[in-house]
Amino acid sequence: MNSQLKPIRIAQIGYGYWGPNLARNFYQLPGAELAYLVDANPDALAKAEQLYRCQTTRVITDVLDDPAIDALVIATPARSHYALTKMALLAGKHVFVEKPLAMSIAEGRELVTLAATQGVTLMVGHVFEYIPAVRYIKAAVGAGELGDLYYLYSRRVNLGRVQSDVNALWSIAPHDISIALYLLEQLPEAVSCHGAACLHGQVEDVIFLTLHFPGNVLCHIHVSWLDPSKTREMTVVGSRKMIVYDDVSAEGKVRIYDKGAYRKGDPIYGEFQYKLHSGDILIPRIDMREPLQEECAHFLESIRSGAKPLTDGENGLRVVTVLAAGQQSLDRGGAKIFLEEFMQQAG
Amino acid sequence: MNSQLKPIRIAQIGYGYWGPNLARNFYQLPGAELAYLVDANPDALAKAEQLYRCQTTRVITDVLDDPAIDALVIATPARSHYALTKMALLAGKHVFVEKPLAMSIAEGRELVTLAATQGVTLMVGHVFEYIPAVRYIKAAVGAGELGDLYYLYSRRVNLGRVQSDVNALWSIAPHDISIALYLLEQLPEAVSCHGAACLHGQVEDVIFLTLHFPGNVLCHIHVSWLDPSKTREMTVVGSRKMIVYDDVSAEGKVRIYDKGAYRKGDPIYGEFQYKLHSGDILIPRIDMREPLQEECAHFLESIRSGAKPLTDGENGLRVVTVLAAGQQSLDRGGAKIFLEEFMQQAG
Amino acid sequence: MNSQLKPIRIAQIGYGYWGPNLARNFYQLPGAELAYLVDANPDALAKAEQLYRCQTTRVITDVLDDPAIDALVIATPARSHYALTKMALLAGKHVFVEKPLAMSIAEGRELVTLAATQGVTLMVGHVFEYIPAVRYIKAAVGAGELGDLYYLYSRRVNLGRVQSDVNALWSIAPHDISIALYLLEQLPEAVSCHGAACLHGQVEDVIFLTLHFPGNVLCHIHVSWLDPSKTREMTVVGSRKMIVYDDVSAEGKVRIYDKGAYRKGDPIYGEFQYKLHSGDILIPRIDMREPLQEECAHFLESIRSGAKPLTDGENGLRVVTVLAAGQQSLDRGGAKIFLEEFMQQAG
Amino acid sequence: MNSQLKPIRIAQIGYGYWGPNLARNFYQLPGAELAYLVDANPDALAKAEQLYRCQTTRVITDVLDDPAIDALVIATPARSHYALTKMALLAGKHVFVEKPLAMSIAEGRELVTLAATQGVTLMVGHVFEYIPAVRYIKAAVGAGELGDLYYLYSRRVNLGRVQSDVNALWSIAPHDISIALYLLEQLPEAVSCHGAACLHGQVEDVIFLTLHFPGNVLCHIHVSWLDPSKTREMTVVGSRKMIVYDDVSAEGKVRIYDKGAYRKGDPIYGEFQYKLHSGDILIPRIDMREPLQEECAHFLESIRSGAKPLTDGENGLRVVTVLAAGQQSLDRGGAKIFLEEFMQQAG
Repeated sequence: MNSQLKPIRIAQIGYGYWGPNLARNFYQLPGAELAYLVDANPDALAKAEQLYRCQTTRVITDVLDDPAIDALVIATPARSHYALTKMALLAGKHVFVEKPLAMSIAEGRELVTLAATQGVTLMVGHVFEYIPAVRYIKAAVGAGELGDLYYLYSRRVNLGRVQSDVNALWSIAPHDISIALYLLEQLPEAVSCHGAACLHGQVEDVIFLTLHFPGNVLCHIHVSWLDPSKTREMTVVGSRKMIVYDDVSAEGKVRIYDKGAYRKGDPIYGEFQYKLHSGDILIPRIDMREPLQEECAHFLESIRSGAKPLTDGENGLRVVTVLAAGQQSLDRGGAKIFLEEFMQQAG
Repeated sequence: MNSQLKPIRIAQIGYGYWGPNLARNFYQLPGAELAYLVDANPDALAKAEQLYRCQTTRVITDVLDDPAIDALVIATPARSHYALTKMALLAGKHVFVEKPLAMSIAEGRELVTLAATQGVTLMVGHVFEYIPAVRYIKAAVGAGELGDLYYLYSRRVNLGRVQSDVNALWSIAPHDISIALYLLEQLPEAVSCHGAACLHGQVEDVIFLTLHFPGNVLCHIHVSWLDPSKTREMTVVGSRKMIVYDDVSAEGKVRIYDKGAYRKGDPIYGEFQYKLHSGDILIPRIDMREPLQEECAHFLESIRSGAKPLTDGENGLRVVTVLAAGQQSLDRGGAKIFLEEFMQQAG
Repeated sequence: MNSQLKPIRIAQIGYGYWGPNLARNFYQLPGAELAYLVDANPDALAKAEQLYRCQTTRVITDVLDDPAIDALVIATPARSHYALTKMALLAGKHVFVEKPLAMSIAEGRELVTLAATQGVTLMVGHVFEYIPAVRYIKAAVGAGELGDLYYLYSRRVNLGRVQSDVNALWSIAPHDISIALYLLEQLPEAVSCHGAACLHGQVEDVIFLTLHFPGNVLCHIHVSWLDPSKTREMTVVGSRKMIVYDDVSAEGKVRIYDKGAYRKGDPIYGEFQYKLHSGDILIPRIDMREPLQEECAHFLESIRSGAKPLTDGENGLRVVTVLAAGQQSLDRGGAKIFLEEFMQQAG
Repeated sequence: MNSQLKPIRIAQIGYGYWGPNLARNFYQLPGAELAYLVDANPDALAKAEQLYRCQTTRVITDVLDDPAIDALVIATPARSHYALTKMALLAGKHVFVEKPLAMSIAEGRELVTLAATQGVTLMVGHVFEYIPAVRYIKAAVGAGELGDLYYLYSRRVNLGRVQSDVNALWSIAPHDISIALYLLEQLPEAVSCHGAACLHGQVEDVIFLTLHFPGNVLCHIHVSWLDPSKTREMTVVGSRKMIVYDDVSAEGKVRIYDKGAYRKGDPIYGEFQYKLHSGDILIPRIDMREPLQEECAHFLESIRSGAKPLTDGENGLRVVTVLAAGQQSLDRGGAKIFLEEFMQQAG
């Protein structure tokens, strides 16, 4: 990073639960200047002002209309992402918006198109794609180390952060969907979703989401904010090896099991033999870097280079597509929603 | 047990994977005599003969026609349960049959009716209902200790015991279904099921089963024989407490979390407040008894007393009903199968 | 804390490994003003200046001679604690010094006396006595919940923070000794110590320290910076209950085992019976507070009130006494050092 | 094993806690015949008779005088090992005796000499030397995989099996001493021992034993039968790698840490640099075999071949030597006992 460069001047909207993490990172990154913080809560603004000595305002147009602001960072509740991102893009700003990009495919598409038209960078905060452990697994899968990929499943549960505006699907599952799409490099063919609204009656606190990928590869996702144990775990099962990614493990987050099973013999005559093996377990050393810092730096680099960010608008739209299909399945009692058809209807 | 009583003379059919455990228990129990073992494999018979000094045969009619045999224990592959149980009941024998009772509702009903007509005891080997930890949880749920029951989920996975005649739903999930029905004391209203046939193409190795109980209580079951980690875990979430039952834990299989969440305020005006609490965790001391021994003793007692066993034919039929509905959902791509309608069609 | 009060003006000496944690806390605490930072390293000073906008200097007399400085916080290498603390006390400053207070009993005594003569507060940074989990255990032991206290043992090991000026006894064991003295409220009668100097040949990387308390209560401490696993664990064994304190556990740091053993019968005739019991395990909810903040606040309060801090000079001297006896045992090949005699010789 | 060979006819003395395991193995092994069981308890004899259809007696001379008995298996309390082994050797029988071989060096030497004189096999039941995990570690250490061996430590604790005739040193530590001597292939130069007699007042329930090996390699052993947690763990620390052997782990008992530390630079000028590295962790697949079966088979093979068993009398005597020195250290308040001198005095 050439420190001679003019810093990218950033205004951040939203300083609630997650916003402070973004603000801290953009404040500390060379090449950026955290110039403005926008929030409805005066206490939040006072706190931010003290920490970062930035300007603050409760009025969004203050930053939209300010030509000195290059980029907007949006860390507000999910239902406001679309409208705020649209306003920012229309004002010609680069945008980093927290996940999910939008609450519908149509909205997401509009934002992607608008960013292209405006010629600005649009990036979505799918932070897991910047996590070293996830990248390690991606590399192992990509290199064929696991053999044939059979299926994967994920559990991300905890007690807390109960939401009342969006359900656990939209609030938590974007992480798992993002990782799954990143690993498999394609969209599922169909999506099924079940959930239970225990507290509110309208907002699902627990979600079981099934993604049907081409080649009969299944991905199952279980998320909840109403669970006794903090768990963030994904298992990837292949014919030759299997990987468990435990994000809350103290000793090595990734385990590679030299375990597998495949079929021998001739299926035509119904004579199958299954060959199982069970070998060593490897816990690779993976460097700990703060993924959020990588993510924020990547946003700055993308603005400077003009290149598409890893988690660009298209990427964010794909996650929204799966979420929206999952929501429709949920609304229809778990019916299997085929994505191709669903996307056409959304068109 | 009055040891003066004439022992119940038992013939066991099947001495493969699970059979030896049953044979050992019936051999050791007072009040029973393991008189006969039936298996197609002469090596298995030789081994059993040496251990238990019982008669052996490869011909089932040898034991069916033997008036000295009081009861049959059936530990054969799942697809043979119905036919063997029917033959045994028709021969006037009491029957202990391993789970599942049958492969269809119609078959299951026929067996239940036949046992009643014949006036003999029919018991299904749903062993988890005899496990002290499960009974402890049942008592806690029954006493209202958890508050409102929100949902429960279960994972029973491992690498191994790959089947080629029945899928993981029929092979593994009977345990979890049996526990869920035991805890909730009712049938689900509907069932949804997804799975992946990774090895064989026809036989699902991994199953995700969702049971929709009355009152919006969800039960989710994940079973597989193609997984890196041996896991046997069930979580029960209530408004006041939550329980985790980890059957492979070395230090206490049951954990009671004094954790919960409930809604405060007036839902009409959309003003919700969620009250979360997070207190102590208790790992109760639960005596270790061999559940199989309890189960086998219960079979003998039921024969003597003429009382219905805890896991009688009706109980086994309810599990079959859920399995059959799950299979239909699986066949229909995860469609929600409503049990009332489904049972009528099966009629 | 009455914010109208004139703030206590603090100068901190040392901004290396641990110093930044202290500086951050004193900076944030109401009632204190972090006025000065002293360090030999200009980079450290520049960093501190930026974060805390305080004065900086490499010359200690700058702060000793400054009448506006009320208190000194000393976070330098162990071997400098005595000299710096003495200078600060002579200059009439209140002193917070990191553990250990000094490297010998004579030095420690001198500092305790000097603080009394000068009428200033002297506090030692034995932070574990401010940790909620340790206080919880102290309360349980104090209330007799464990029955007779049989013995306790501790392991504090990791890979890293290799020292070359002091061994693992002086570097790590002060924590465990501090906790043991806090729990047992007395000095041991004797001390034995073994160690291995693997890397350096002169400086022990691993230490096994045994404290012999009155009433045949044993305390064993194992510390090392050359170990594969990060472990911070203490076990307290009583006749009725046992406690394990695992400081790196994610789910509850304290476990209370309703386990115990005691002797029944008449020892005169050599007829013993041991009654063992093994009941529930309780993981109590203990609030997480930053102990360092409590410790720093306690220093400020002690200065204002003039009351002796919990970990005052006497407290720090007792830890030094055990350390010095341990060192002598180490020097004499593990010989048992009796404290009464040892303290007289130190005299 | 040539099954044509005349079976080795075995009489076992002692059928209490551990005896049934040995009897079962010798009963099942080809080439052996469990001919006789000797115990003072008629219930034990009745049980053994039923299981193994062997002769039983309460009179030891019945088996000593029986020329058809080739070998004696001694599984009685520790204090009787010497006398019974001596009687058996004098009667010309091969002897397998549980650990410890004897309660003093002199006794142990006498048995070793007597076995040689009589030309029979004498084997001690140090079962850990037959455990695949221990052999794996032995191979790794032997191959230099760990670099320089720095130190090792072991913890073997649990609640239960309280003894009143021998302390935890003699009852539990033989396992750890046996493993340590096996790994290091030499005797320690000196031994120090501390303990606490919590229950009885005379019999130590908890023991901390330090073995000082040549080259400043330390081995520390902590054993107890009065502990909340079942732990059987040994850590071996080398300059290049470290190994943790956790015998109660469900997922891989051995972990190899690619972690280490060594010194760089010139010690003369006191300028040290420590190079630490921390890489992958490997959990190797180690086949599970019942070590007791291997041990028993090895006894039979040794009798047939006339070769010295791995854990022969000399091996058992070395363990007794360390135990006896540990006991003397314990009696002398933890004084360091130098083995060379100690063995001469024992002479």
